[in-house]
Amino acid sequence: MTIKISIDCMGGDHGPAVTIPAALAFLKHEPEAELILVGLEDQIRAELKKHHAADNPRLSVKHAAEVVAMDDPVEVALRRKKDSSMRVAIEQVKDGSAAVCVSAGNTGALMAISRYVLKTMADVDRPAICSILPNQKGGPTYMLDLGANVDCEPHHLHQFAIMGAVLFEAMEHRRPSIGLLNVGTEEIKGTEAVKATAALLRADHERGVLNFHGNVEGNDIFKGTVDVVVCDGFVGNVTLKAVEGLSRFFKATLMETTLSKLGALLAMKSLKKLNPESYNGAGLLGLKGLVFKSHGGAQAYAYEWAIRRAFDAAKYNVQDQLSTLIHELMPPSADREAPAPTIQQVKQ
Amino acid sequence: MTIKISIDCMGGDHGPAVTIPAALAFLKHEPEAELILVGLEDQIRAELKKHHAADNPRLSVKHAAEVVAMDDPVEVALRRKKDSSMRVAIEQVKDGSAAVCVSAGNTGALMAISRYVLKTMADVDRPAICSILPNQKGGPTYMLDLGANVDCEPHHLHQFAIMGAVLFEAMEHRRPSIGLLNVGTEEIKGTEAVKATAALLRADHERGVLNFHGNVEGNDIFKGTVDVVVCDGFVGNVTLKAVEGLSRFFKATLMETTLSKLGALLAMKSLKKLNPESYNGAGLLGLKGLVFKSHGGAQAYAYEWAIRRAFDAAKYNVQDQLSTLIHELMPPSADREAPAPTIQQVKQ
Repeated sequence: MTIKISIDCMGGDHGPAVTIPAALAFLKHEPEAELILVGLEDQIRAELKKHHAADNPRLSVKHAAEVVAMDDPVEVALRRKKDSSMRVAIEQVKDGSAAVCVSAGNTGALMAISRYVLKTMADVDRPAICSILPNQKGGPTYMLDLGANVDCEPHHLHQFAIMGAVLFEAMEHRRPSIGLLNVGTEEIKGTEAVKATAALLRADHERGVLNFHGNVEGNDIFKGTVDVVVCDGFVGNVTLKAVEGLSRFFKATLMETTLSKLGALLAMKSLKKLNPESYNGAGLLGLKGLVFKSHGGAQAYAYEWAIRRAFDAAKYNVQDQLSTLIHELMPPSADREAPAPTIQQVKQ
Repeated sequence: MTIKISIDCMGGDHGPAVTIPAALAFLKHEPEAELILVGLEDQIRAELKKHHAADNPRLSVKHAAEVVAMDDPVEVALRRKKDSSMRVAIEQVKDGSAAVCVSAGNTGALMAISRYVLKTMADVDRPAICSILPNQKGGPTYMLDLGANVDCEPHHLHQFAIMGAVLFEAMEHRRPSIGLLNVGTEEIKGTEAVKATAALLRADHERGVLNFHGNVEGNDIFKGTVDVVVCDGFVGNVTLKAVEGLSRFFKATLMETTLSKLGALLAMKSLKKLNPESYNGAGLLGLKGLVFKSHGGAQAYAYEWAIRRAFDAAKYNVQDQLSTLIHELMPPSADREAPAPTIQQVKQ
C-alpha cells in the first residue's frame, strides 16, 4: 500500500537544496512512498533535473507561490502568506491528498498554520510537539512538549502524556513507561502544576490506562529511565536547545586539533548513535491530521530522517490511534476546565 | 592574608575518602588558605594519617557527631540532626571562624540549613544557587537559579539576575552581560513571568545599572552569548541535569570500544575544557554568609575545584560586594511585593 507525503520543499534554512536530495534519497529506500513536493515549481524542477529525477513517477510537484521565512512572525505566515509552501503542504493533508506533511519551517508558523488548517483534535485542548532523543539503553526517548505551549495547566500536561504514550506505542509497538520531568523524584518536589499533573497521572496509572513511572529528572532523559518524558513547552524547548548546544560544543571541540580530529574519526562508529541528525523529526500531536517538523538547520541526511518518521507515523496509522485512544483516555472536558486539583484533593 | 574555609567532610556520595584528599591537594596549591575539616573526627584523622598530613599546621579538625545523608528529607536534616557536619561547617561561617563553607551534601538540606543558620540577606527574598558552565568562547557562563526556587515571580528572577551579575563581576573582574533564558529571543516570547522579568531587566539596563542583553535560548548557554544566564530553579535544575546526563552519555559512548577509547585518548586534550569536573562548585547567593556546593558525586579533582571557587569568592570579597550592590540595585521591597507588572505596565 502506498503512502503519500507532502513535503514543504521551501522550509528550513536551506530549502530545495536540502529537501529535494533528502526526498530522493528517501524514495530510493522506501518503495511504498509517494511524495508531493510543494513550493516554487521552477526551483523544485531545477533541483530535480540536477539529480536526474525529473520524471520519477512517484514524485509530483505542487506549486506554491510564497515562502514562509524562518523569521516571519506567526501573523505574517498565517494571514499574509496564504499561498505559502508550508500552508499548501499542510492543505494536502487536510484534503486527503497526503497522509502526512513534513516541513523544516519556522516552528511557530508551522504549528499556527497546522492548527488553523487542520484544526485541533476533539478532546485535545492544545496540540504539542513531540521529539525523539537517543538514550543510553540504545532506545528512543520521546519527549513533549518541545515549545508549542509555554504556560501549561495540569490538564494540558496530562494530555501531553496521553498523546506521547499513544505516539510511542504506535511507533515502537510496545506500551511505554511515562515520566514527568521534575527537579526530583519525590512526590513533594516540583511546581504546583507539576505536582497536580503527577496526581492526575497516578490516577491514570491506578486505573490501568497509563504506565506512569513517576517523576524523572533531567539526566533521566538520556539514561532511558522512561520511554516518554512529559514537560511543558518552556522547559522542553530550553532543555532541548541546551542539549543541542552542548552537542555542537562537543563536535566543535573534537574538530579543534589534528589530534582530536583523528580521535573523533576513531570514535566515530561509537559516536554515531549519539548523532542528533538521526533523531530529526518531531511530531505535531493533537491535530486533525499528521504533521512532522524537521530541524530548520537540517542537512539532507537529517531531513531524510524526518520524512522517514512521518512515513512510519502514517504507516502505523498514528492519527487514528491518537483520536481513538485520546478519546478513551481523556477525562471529560468539564474536569479539564476545572481548576487544577491539588495532590490532596486527588488523593482523597 | 589567610582565608579560612570550613569543609563539610562527610557530605556527598564519598565523604572523607574524597573531601580530605581534595582538601590536601588544594592546600598544596594555595598557601593563603587554612581549612577547618568538619565531621566525624576519627574518620577525618584516619584519612589524614593515610595521607601523612596528620599535623599540617594549616588544617584543624572540628568534630560533628551526625551526618546528613544524601536522601535525608530537609526536615530531618534541619530539625533532627543539629550536630551534623553540614550544619557545624555552616556555623563556622556564621560565627566568623571561616570566611566560606564548602559542602557536597544534599542540596535541599544545604540550602535549608544555610538559610536557617545564616539567614537571608536584607533586600533578598530568596537565595539562589549559581553554577558555572564552560562555553565555546572559552569563558565561563554563570547560570542561576539551579534548583533552589521552583515557582518564581518576576521579582525573584530579577533578584537572581542582580546576584548573578555581582558574583560574576567579583569573580571574573569585568562587568557581565545578562541573558534571560527563554524559548526565543523576541520580546513577545515566553511565559508571563519571564516577559515581566524581561521588562524589569530592560528598565535596569536603561537606568544603566545592569547590562541586559535580552532573551537567550538554551543553546546560548554553551555558545557564550552572555556571561550570566537567568532562569527559575525548575528550568535551571532540569537543564543542568539534562546536560550532565548528555555528558555522561558522551563519556560512556567514548569508552565503548577499544577504537573509541583510543579516539577519546587522542582528543583528550581538546575535550578537557569540556570536562564538567573543572566547573564544579556552585555558590549559594543571597545569604548572610558564603556557602559553596559541590556536586554530590564529585571525585577529589572536582571537589578541589569547588574549594578553589569558594576560596576565590572569599578572597574577592563577594559577600560584601553582594550586600552593597544588591542593596543599591534592588528595588524597594514594596515594589517587589506588588504583583508582577506586565510588559505594557512597565513600558508606560
